[in-house]
Amino acid sequence: MRDFSRDHRWLSINTATVRAQGDLLAIVDACARAEIGAISPWRDQVEAVGLDKAVRAVRDAGLKLSGYCRGGMFPSDTDRRQEMIDDNRRAIDEATALGAPCLVLVVGGLPQFSRPGSAASKDIGAARALVEDAIGELLGYARRAGMPLAIEPLHPMYAADRACVNTIAQALDICDSTDPGCSGDLGIACDVYHVWWDPALFAGIKRAGRERLLAYHVCDWLVPTRDLLLDRGMMGDGVIDLKSIRAAVEAAGYGGYSEVEIFSQDWWSRPIDDVLQTCIARHRSCV
Amino acid sequence: MRDFSRDHRWLSINTATVRAQGDLLAIVDACARAEIGAISPWRDQVEAVGLDKAVRAVRDAGLKLSGYCRGGMFPSDTDRRQEMIDDNRRAIDEATALGAPCLVLVVGGLPQFSRPGSAASKDIGAARALVEDAIGELLGYARRAGMPLAIEPLHPMYAADRACVNTIAQALDICDSTDPGCSGDLGIACDVYHVWWDPALFAGIKRAGRERLLAYHVCDWLVPTRDLLLDRGMMGDGVIDLKSIRAAVEAAGYGGYSEVEIFSQDWWSRPIDDVLQTCIARHRSCV
Repeated sequence: MRDFSRDHRWLSINTATVRAQGDLLAIVDACARAEIGAISPWRDQVEAVGLDKAVRAVRDAGLKLSGYCRGGMFPSDTDRRQEMIDDNRRAIDEATALGAPCLVLVVGGLPQFSRPGSAASKDIGAARALVEDAIGELLGYARRAGMPLAIEPLHPMYAADRACVNTIAQALDICDSTDPGCSGDLGIACDVYHVWWDPALFAGIKRAGRERLLAYHVCDWLVPTRDLLLDRGMMGDGVIDLKSIRAAVEAAGYGGYSEVEIFSQDWWSRPIDDVLQTCIARHRSCV
Repeated sequence: MRDFSRDHRWLSINTATVRAQGDLLAIVDACARAEIGAISPWRDQVEAVGLDKAVRAVRDAGLKLSGYCRGGMFPSDTDRRQEMIDDNRRAIDEATALGAPCLVLVVGGLPQFSRPGSAASKDIGAARALVEDAIGELLGYARRAGMPLAIEPLHPMYAADRACVNTIAQALDICDSTDPGCSGDLGIACDVYHVWWDPALFAGIKRAGRERLLAYHVCDWLVPTRDLLLDRGMMGDGVIDLKSIRAAVEAAGYGGYSEVEIFSQDWWSRPIDDVLQTCIARHRSCV
């Protein structure tokens, strides 16, 4: 297991962590000031400053990417299917322009939440079938672009509206059926917030292995959690056994960035440099 | 599948659903007025009026019980273990006095939340081992009392502080290792709120079968859910495919009550008779 205590070369900042404090250019500047080596930006943040400007800012700051957030939101009704496919192709193009190592997929929940306006359904099994179908269709385009797709299982509390893929096993089943050759073009993003509770977590990480582990995200689970979306904790402030999970991920062959992704009204209310310095300190001591 | 549309003989009211509107005696009266045939009371509500008075009120109203809530909260440090076992034995005694068909177990999360004052831990695997160990110890006492124990898997968002058993499969694994003979003394309580998202839900229900399915709880999952604890929905107001799940439960052999358990600031703010009439109407149309 790599020693993170002496520097923060393996730290990446998911730019949602400080999204309230400034636009993508301000975040890139702040990361450069803190000598952070990598980020993972969101599409809306890129769009707000313009793709070309975002590409230049990242390059000029000497930053790497640990991923690009996000493609997905696959379940839709028939009327919205082509729009959904086109939207995801654009996400792949943007990820390519930015030099991301993978496009993270938040797969979507029931169609009425995944692609608003779609006919309402309570059939989560059908939504899951639509996800697998769309990933199968998108994979060819991603391959031609050389852009790996990383399915991110989301916590079951998001099953209805954000992602109906809720465990690593489920994500790997999709990988295995869609990409049986384990080409490296399809894998998972493992975010501790979503999977820490899973009794099959360590088995899932082992099964994923180096070929399927495309991204690793950290934060913490707070007790109490006051909001389903915006109350994630800073590493060390919650109950997740972060070092054990990273040990497992690295034992399975992962050697990439540890990406901090915290959606939190609390951390969004603090100065950006303070947040980044706290990320660095906790990355050294707790991750 | 039984036809619920013409009467509400299989409806039970978990008394937490109207806990803000009155004490247990007031709830028993209101259920009698609404010709509801069964309830599932909570220990603190019984304690508030006194066990003897609760037993008499239930009997005089001609009510059956569909369960008793709740034993559990097993993980603790060594100092609090005997207190935890004694507490659970008292729960079994109370359930017996009230004539409950089973004692529902909410197994507890990490020791510092399950039994406050216990040494803090982030080892959810160790907490799970403590749960299995405690159920094994308690089962003998429950058998002698003739009181079946029903392990209730709770939604993964409660894994840290309320229950580290989060799927039907996990609960059944404990059943199978602790009660390999499938004696009827140990099973599960299936609450749709906790398990609706699980890709292995239908496999789990089938595996449980008649012998392990001791209770069935209904409510609904709202989108958005504004609070992790107190924003459960009335049946029909959310996204859970209730009829499909009941069909599966009944196909597996369950023929008992459908128990409405809704923790909701919203429903707690309404008159008790209105809430019960809504439960009856939705039980007929949506469950």
